[in-house]
Amino acid sequence: MKSIKSEEIAQLEKQYRISLINSLIGFRSLNLLGTTSNDGVSNLCIISSTFHLGANPPLIGLVIRPEREHNDTLRNIKLTGQYTLNNVLPEWYMQAHQTSASYPSGVSEFDACHFKKQYIHGFKAPFVAESNICIGLELREVIDMEINGTTLVIGEVIQILTEDGLIGVDGTVDHTKASTMTVAGLDTYFLPQPVGQLAYAKPEIEPHLLNPDVNSNV
Amino acid sequence: MKSIKSEEIAQLEKQYRISLINSLIGFRSLNLLGTTSNDGVSNLCIISSTFHLGANPPLIGLVIRPEREHNDTLRNIKLTGQYTLNNVLPEWYMQAHQTSASYPSGVSEFDACHFKKQYIHGFKAPFVAESNICIGLELREVIDMEINGTTLVIGEVIQILTEDGLIGVDGTVDHTKASTMTVAGLDTYFLPQPVGQLAYAKPEIEPHLLNPDVNSNV
Repeated sequence: MKSIKSEEIAQLEKQYRISLINSLIGFRSLNLLGTTSNDGVSNLCIISSTFHLGANPPLIGLVIRPEREHNDTLRNIKLTGQYTLNNVLPEWYMQAHQTSASYPSGVSEFDACHFKKQYIHGFKAPFVAESNICIGLELREVIDMEINGTTLVIGEVIQILTEDGLIGVDGTVDHTKASTMTVAGLDTYFLPQPVGQLAYAKPEIEPHLLNPDVNSNV
Repeated sequence: MKSIKSEEIAQLEKQYRISLINSLIGFRSLNLLGTTSNDGVSNLCIISSTFHLGANPPLIGLVIRPEREHNDTLRNIKLTGQYTLNNVLPEWYMQAHQTSASYPSGVSEFDACHFKKQYIHGFKAPFVAESNICIGLELREVIDMEINGTTLVIGEVIQILTEDGLIGVDGTVDHTKASTMTVAGLDTYFLPQPVGQLAYAKPEIEPHLLNPDVNSNV
């Protein structure tokens, strides 16, 4: 076993530490975050810090790094109160990664990285037309984290857009069929292979596959 | 395209809505969260709401659902100030899922679900001996979310324990080699297959593999 303690973590070379800490918790939700300014300048950035906060009301949280001058995303979310999350697919994951480049304020990553904006009636922020699972959110809460200068953004899901046939009979989104990707650390992209869907766990019952026939080739 | 709007989400059957909202953002970090009471009664639960908050200091956040009488996890974290996150492996992912069953307070899921506790000198909370990537955290902040009664727990990484050979030369944890699993929604478990590791993105450079020779069989 390799053991790394607090004092050693603090002394690690900066880039090594960033890669290590970013990859510790495993695979992360991967989405493109779409916003627009009040002037209609769109913005798009890849994000892997979203988390499920609750189903009723339907809430999703995400972390925005310390505000820099050209950080349009947080400003747009605060100004318009709306934003989108869109899944990342293998055909264009390199373009999605490219949205993490530090483009100047005013340059839309939709254009620079070759994504098509999709607008729907009554919703200000642009969706990514190339994605097949898109979420429209309305800002509910902004929490400034004194501990490290990041910002937690909490939003309510007010619009779901998916390609037909991607939501299962029980409500679960079929990310295998959608080809949704995931990321570990900062830069390594993956496609998950299903292992099994398990039944709701109860204390006196041994854990088991929800539907062994279906799950044999999930 | 299938479109589901706010009013329709609110009217969905409860379990369907829970499954849908839980699976929207894609694949999630999957870990076992280990704690202990001051009396030495251990507790273990599976968690898929962890998120990376920052690398310096090294901070990880997670969501705990509204406190119930037998929710020992949050109480233990508050009492002892320490907890562990441990990755989930295919050989025993069903046991890991079983920790989500509602065992009475005082029953250790380590025992009920057949996991071995690993203690290290100077750290109160138990690690999962069966995991090969383990994180020891110290509580830094508790945020009670009025919006839905959940609790955000922010902790600093003060101990990393990994099997030898799982941290790459650049610091990134090799979750493929570790066989770390991920989850979508509440109950469907996956093993990710690597697609590519990309170079740091810059505005004027086309996105590309970090090391095409290595990445051809990442």
